Amino acid sequence: MRLHDNLSSGNGYKVRLLLTLLGLPFERVEYDIDKDETRTPEFLEKINPNGRVPVLETESGEFLPESNAILFYLSEGTPLLPEGRLEQARVLHWMFFEQYSHEPNVATPRFWTTHHVEMTGERRIALEQKRKLGYDALGVMERHLDGRNFFVADRYSIADIALYAYTHVADEGGFDLQGFPLIRAWLERVAAQPGHVPITQGQ
Amino acid sequence: MRLHDNLSSGNGYKVRLLLTLLGLPFERVEYDIDKDETRTPEFLEKINPNGRVPVLETESGEFLPESNAILFYLSEGTPLLPEGRLEQARVLHWMFFEQYSHEPNVATPRFWTTHHVEMTGERRIALEQKRKLGYDALGVMERHLDGRNFFVADRYSIADIALYAYTHVADEGGFDLQGFPLIRAWLERVAAQPGHVPITQGQ
Repeated sequence: MRLHDNLSSGNGYKVRLLLTLLGLPFERVEYDIDKDETRTPEFLEKINPNGRVPVLETESGEFLPESNAILFYLSEGTPLLPEGRLEQARVLHWMFFEQYSHEPNVATPRFWTTHHVEMTGERRIALEQKRKLGYDALGVMERHLDGRNFFVADRYSIADIALYAYTHVADEGGFDLQGFPLIRAWLERVAAQPGHVPITQGQ
Repeated sequence: MRLHDNLSSGNGYKVRLLLTLLGLPFERVEYDIDKDETRTPEFLEKINPNGRVPVLETESGEFLPESNAILFYLSEGTPLLPEGRLEQARVLHWMFFEQYSHEPNVATPRFWTTHHVEMTGERRIALEQKRKLGYDALGVMERHLDGRNFFVADRYSIADIALYAYTHVADEGGFDLQGFPLIRAWLERVAAQPGHVPITQGQ
């Protein structure tokens, strides 16, 4: 399998982490998103018309975008995806929460900081809004973790991987997790899983 | 089953449409989102800590939020969810695309207009950005529909339901679908499905 990827991307990291945990060998193709390498006519034509990474290129040559769809695809039939119908729906509940309420607010400020994006007046206003909504999302997580070790079915699953990716580097976007002790304990539990790799590790 | 809902919500409509197509009886509980009825302490405590509808209350009393997670849950084992592993991943790919690249840009301007939200300078700037990103998302859809009748596995599925919900009322948020003939033909195919109901129909 081949992973079209960007090393700094939390969405890419989700897939790298899962592939590693499952012991699946993969080749990584790095794109420089600051140079719009995922928006070239060739990339849009062949790899992802939506101009984003990660994209999983399967052994049969299919291109599958959307990090959380890739997680679901790769984890089916493994212990990282609970089996029951309701449990799978709960995994999806948290993964849709992640993409709608968490990632746009927690990941984007990190992107602006780490990629040295110019903070126009427009972006400063957006940042204020994202800061509030990001803390709201972290609050929802903190509350859910009260009495739970992991997000779904009390075991480590792709729901945790999806939420871990940008939460564990939220400080790089200016979020302070001091007031979220349950999240901090959960981050440690995830990082202590056998076979865990950091976001900085390409392969 | 009970659906915690708001009649004007496209996300709620997805679930109402699917429940109706599947012939599943349900009770609908309407919330006035202009009055923050989904942000009361009771709602946050019992129904959805993230303060949003739709939420499906199952027969066993579980509360399941996130429209697309609900679609997946309800459609499992029915013709509206293709069976293969890759096909299910493709359904999820389009549903994550919908929540990340489409809904925040196509649905939010409609919300601002139909709910008479005051257009501050801040919102006007955001609207401009959303207009561009919304048309980008519609462009990705138009391109995918070239040579296809439906989004996944060439048949009507929950991927179409998820994308239909806010696309068919995109004009209410100021989007012009004139330049998207393949989307317009697909909207007609979806609306022609047996048992189809409009967004305005509560039950």
